Amino acid sequence: MGEMSTGSSGGSEGVAVPKAVVARLSLYCRELQHLVQQGRTTINSAQLGKRLGVTDAQVRKDLAYFGQFGYPGIGYRCGELVEQIRRILGTTESWSVVLAGVGNLGHALLRYRGFADQGFRIVAAVDVAPQKVGQEIAGVRIGHLDRLSEVMQAHDIRIAVLAVPAPQAQRVAQQLVDAGIVGILNFAPVTLTLPEDIAVVGVDLSIELEQLVFAVVKKGVRP
Amino acid sequence: MGEMSTGSSGGSEGVAVPKAVVARLSLYCRELQHLVQQGRTTINSAQLGKRLGVTDAQVRKDLAYFGQFGYPGIGYRCGELVEQIRRILGTTESWSVVLAGVGNLGHALLRYRGFADQGFRIVAAVDVAPQKVGQEIAGVRIGHLDRLSEVMQAHDIRIAVLAVPAPQAQRVAQQLVDAGIVGILNFAPVTLTLPEDIAVVGVDLSIELEQLVFAVVKKGVRP
Repeated sequence: MGEMSTGSSGGSEGVAVPKAVVARLSLYCRELQHLVQQGRTTINSAQLGKRLGVTDAQVRKDLAYFGQFGYPGIGYRCGELVEQIRRILGTTESWSVVLAGVGNLGHALLRYRGFADQGFRIVAAVDVAPQKVGQEIAGVRIGHLDRLSEVMQAHDIRIAVLAVPAPQAQRVAQQLVDAGIVGILNFAPVTLTLPEDIAVVGVDLSIELEQLVFAVVKKGVRP
Repeated sequence: MGEMSTGSSGGSEGVAVPKAVVARLSLYCRELQHLVQQGRTTINSAQLGKRLGVTDAQVRKDLAYFGQFGYPGIGYRCGELVEQIRRILGTTESWSVVLAGVGNLGHALLRYRGFADQGFRIVAAVDVAPQKVGQEIAGVRIGHLDRLSEVMQAHDIRIAVLAVPAPQAQRVAQQLVDAGIVGILNFAPVTLTLPEDIAVVGVDLSIELEQLVFAVVKKGVRP
């Protein structure tokens, strides 16, 4: 994750939860959803951890931030734990999202089917290019960035995906915040400067590749 | 980052470097590159940290895993530190990449200009769809997945970007590894099971949105 703050959010009892824990929670949830699809009803912490490369102790410790979820002698009920984690993450409710920036990446994000599977719907998109405004992609009509507020009111949107070029990212992010956005998923390769109460998660595709290269080089491989 | 391993790689003196440190190194590098473009020649740890939302102490502590880089009374020389970090990350050399899966996301990744800026070139792409094989996108001809080894030999490729649908991800990943790939940037929303010596970085776009939603909900916002 690209966020730079030292990484904790409130747990169920006000305890600060490290970002790494929240990240693993999403991975547990994803794996449990696969298990449910495969017809698996229960799993214990060792089995779940093994699928994800973490110890049973780590799984239990992560979940312990939020409550007690296991059944003695059984472990976890997969379907139930999926719902419990989704409640913790806030994703039992569906979220309407606005996409800012309909370039190559924006196009792909509009068509990304994984979002709907998890309760996220891109319901609106904005851009500034005249040839784009008015187009419809994946059932979403592209509006002009300057009419963002109208778009937001029409759809009750709280979060945005930012996929504009780096030089425009800060300015457009500020416009999103001014229009009422409280959370931004930022794909532009810049760090945004926004008020403390705005949540930002950055995904920099080049940085992800850099992290991969570092891991590869450490195993002794060169290009 | 989606990797589940407890997150450290070798530092300059064999000390295990936490993944969070390596992630911040990339962010420092990115910010320093912006500063260089803006004509800034030096910066101290407090100023650099402020731009990224971390303390001066954190910046110095992160860099200390890899050596001493500051100049007394000056701080860091921006251009020099960019190069030093790129050497640490392994990105002073350019890396050839193969893209597996040329769907919506794959298309966008083929056209993503940020990769080239950081020394990554997608030089080959593979898919299985007959209507895609033979097409050329962004100067890259799409080959068939089954001819991967020929592609790899022609281009001296070590790392791959995996952008196939979830049900095919594990199988294609194994094919990539069998053909000699040692590092995979995985966009499929599944955890891959691969030998320990294969590096994997996962980017799950839905999980990134989930992390954002969790942060937003913790600030008291509902959809």
